[in-house]
Amino acid sequence: MDIASIGLIGVGTMGSALALNIAENGHDIALYNLDPTTIDELIDRAGELAPRLSKTLDIKELVEALKPPRAIILLVPAGAPVDITIDELVKHLEPGDTIIDGGNSDFKDTQQRTKRVEAEGLQYLGVGVSGGEDGARHGPSMMVGGSPTAWEPIRPIFEAIAAKFNGEPCVAHLGPDGAGHFVKTVHNGIEYADMQMIAEIYGLLRDAQGRTPAQIAPLFHKWNEGPLQSYLVEISAKVLDAVDPETGKPMLDVIVDQAGQKGTGRWTVIEAIKMGQSASIIEAAVGARVLSSERTVRQAAGDILGSDVPEGIAFEESDLESALLVGRALSYAQGFRILKAASDEFDWNLEYSKIAEVWRAGCIIRSAMLDDISTAFKSDLPHGRLILSNHFATLLKTHIGALRRVVATATLAGLPVPALSSAVSWYDEIRQPRGTANMIQGQRDFFGAHGFARVDQDGEFHGPW
Amino acid sequence: MDIASIGLIGVGTMGSALALNIAENGHDIALYNLDPTTIDELIDRAGELAPRLSKTLDIKELVEALKPPRAIILLVPAGAPVDITIDELVKHLEPGDTIIDGGNSDFKDTQQRTKRVEAEGLQYLGVGVSGGEDGARHGPSMMVGGSPTAWEPIRPIFEAIAAKFNGEPCVAHLGPDGAGHFVKTVHNGIEYADMQMIAEIYGLLRDAQGRTPAQIAPLFHKWNEGPLQSYLVEISAKVLDAVDPETGKPMLDVIVDQAGQKGTGRWTVIEAIKMGQSASIIEAAVGARVLSSERTVRQAAGDILGSDVPEGIAFEESDLESALLVGRALSYAQGFRILKAASDEFDWNLEYSKIAEVWRAGCIIRSAMLDDISTAFKSDLPHGRLILSNHFATLLKTHIGALRRVVATATLAGLPVPALSSAVSWYDEIRQPRGTANMIQGQRDFFGAHGFARVDQDGEFHGPW
Repeated sequence: MDIASIGLIGVGTMGSALALNIAENGHDIALYNLDPTTIDELIDRAGELAPRLSKTLDIKELVEALKPPRAIILLVPAGAPVDITIDELVKHLEPGDTIIDGGNSDFKDTQQRTKRVEAEGLQYLGVGVSGGEDGARHGPSMMVGGSPTAWEPIRPIFEAIAAKFNGEPCVAHLGPDGAGHFVKTVHNGIEYADMQMIAEIYGLLRDAQGRTPAQIAPLFHKWNEGPLQSYLVEISAKVLDAVDPETGKPMLDVIVDQAGQKGTGRWTVIEAIKMGQSASIIEAAVGARVLSSERTVRQAAGDILGSDVPEGIAFEESDLESALLVGRALSYAQGFRILKAASDEFDWNLEYSKIAEVWRAGCIIRSAMLDDISTAFKSDLPHGRLILSNHFATLLKTHIGALRRVVATATLAGLPVPALSSAVSWYDEIRQPRGTANMIQGQRDFFGAHGFARVDQDGEFHGPW
Repeated sequence: MDIASIGLIGVGTMGSALALNIAENGHDIALYNLDPTTIDELIDRAGELAPRLSKTLDIKELVEALKPPRAIILLVPAGAPVDITIDELVKHLEPGDTIIDGGNSDFKDTQQRTKRVEAEGLQYLGVGVSGGEDGARHGPSMMVGGSPTAWEPIRPIFEAIAAKFNGEPCVAHLGPDGAGHFVKTVHNGIEYADMQMIAEIYGLLRDAQGRTPAQIAPLFHKWNEGPLQSYLVEISAKVLDAVDPETGKPMLDVIVDQAGQKGTGRWTVIEAIKMGQSASIIEAAVGARVLSSERTVRQAAGDILGSDVPEGIAFEESDLESALLVGRALSYAQGFRILKAASDEFDWNLEYSKIAEVWRAGCIIRSAMLDDISTAFKSDLPHGRLILSNHFATLLKTHIGALRRVVATATLAGLPVPALSSAVSWYDEIRQPRGTANMIQGQRDFFGAHGFARVDQDGEFHGPW
């Protein structure tokens, strides 16, 4: 039985935008916010959609204003506010009603809350929503986790409001309880990596070749017409284009080089490591933001250790494009490897092609490459590894030389490329049939008698030291 | 008042070795182990030390066999076994008695247990012990956390059994509750990084230059006489020397290239990230072990993506030595930065020179460089950063070119150097006065209105997009 009525709690930037999107798709929506004036402001600017929006002054009133079975969407800050809201909701909701957490919640919290809410005879969905304010308003990408019986009633509405790729809605039920929020977490990790690699390439053009933002922008616009086509390259071109209205300088030159982070990139790395996976490219991106925040130290270090860039450092534009392409492919591959580890650990049975499809539109990492990824996951995939698909193996072998030249040249010149170099390291480690961990095992056995395996017989052995 | 008697629970590899060490230093020690036969075996091989060792059959008997004030050292597996043992001990111990956890416990657990045990009127110390079995037997490095009143009574015994550097005991009280175990965690992270960089250098000599272990060993022996002097380089030389008694082949060639991990390297990365720090070099080492465990995939990937090493790749031996030296210095610097973050977060007031001193002997990462680190932390240190000390700034500027050449050449040749390349990225990021996070901030403001700072005025701004 479909949802009969919709409520939304948390009328902030995302909540307002999503409410308007839902209203625009023909649904009434009742709203509750801690500060009710925000709802007044929203209704004021809602124009012809205003009649569909109604304000309530507390959660009890919200619930009573809605006809069961109800869907209540939460877009409150992650953490305690979600639990507090759930506590109040469960007092008033009835069996068949669904609570939907659309915030950036920790998937482990979502797993707990699912149990808690289902124990009350209610339903729960944890939904990762991507696309920022614009996406929420006009079509986000949504990654849904929860029971199928919780998903089916809300499906028509979510499919209507979601972004579309070739007409297909970019929303899907991906797995139970925390699966949706976990996929969102990995999405955000990939987002960090992609942004960082773009920033590194920008830095090479700026510092090695002395180019201004206005000189770099056309390159990004051109790249956005090719295999690098993506929202992030598109907006980076626009950021490069932008002029500061106050000073007339390039906007980029006025922005302080200190990046903030909300934390989701960090979560991706932590969860990956806990599950015994490498998230090195994402960690490089997280680390770069950390180091950017130490601007005073960087300036002192530049004075003491030197900060000059040698003359005559050259990068081929086609090499930079190829480097970004390969870096992107490898960071997606790392991300999907992390998804697989979680899927195995929690028995989620994630469908990777479906995840790639959901990411093709609406979300921050949307790119031409995602369609190829979706196809690759439906093809013959040795060991289930994206990089071993025909398409990506060819792409990598074709372009890896460019990434090598870019990283090597940058390294010799003293220009930092942490994410791009992590990508090439990961590639070279994964395709090395005889690695160097035999040395690690020798050392570990020497000092700790931890034992090692032999190439010629089964069992655990110790060395003659 | 000094400790009057000592007990030890957990007579495994470390427990046995530590018990003999304590006995050799003139103290009787009562022992308890879940499996009592292990104690019998220990006493059997204890020779002239046997009269000092006594066996007890349960914790109550252990406590009653000891004269208060007692010190009970735990060397049981980390996690639940520690809690179970504490639960039983608190039933029998008396005020003034001290429980000492010498295992690889999570520092957060140690913080909790300290509260719990102190609430019973007892004392608690969390001690990180390094040096493996040999260290435990003849002189470990020990990193002590807990209250000073818990530390003082046991100090004479610990100073007696600890490793000595120029006669000074490598044990110190470093801070309250979990400080000792946290310092041990970071020690283990640095250990991972150091081992990984050694393995990477070994790999370059093996794969680019086709050298056998017997041909590589003399280089490591030579390096151990210079600024790279360290336990890890020394044992790596011995591992390179070793011949498999069964086949007559180099031992290294018989060991499977799949590294195990007990988890402490991972913890270092997770804690670093939680505290907003970069642990990229350690993460590279953890990631390398992860990828080593996927040997079947590596072989398939080598077939599909190629695994040939180009001909004619050359590395200068002096470059390899310098690369390892710089990599080591940078991974220590990263480690001490993590220690500082924890010290600030938990108000531990860690003394970094003291930590470096404690690490100079007995522990796995002991090296000539640690004495320089200890001195640097007592010198003029801009922003408290090791790399900005006179000694290390000079070292880095002198040798960084070699690290660049090694990483660049390896990258072009397709030979993986994840830790060494993370090190050079970190160096180039930290000394870059004008970074590339302005691009990150531009992107974040474009899609999420997150706001940025301007170079020319205070406040938070948004772009004209």
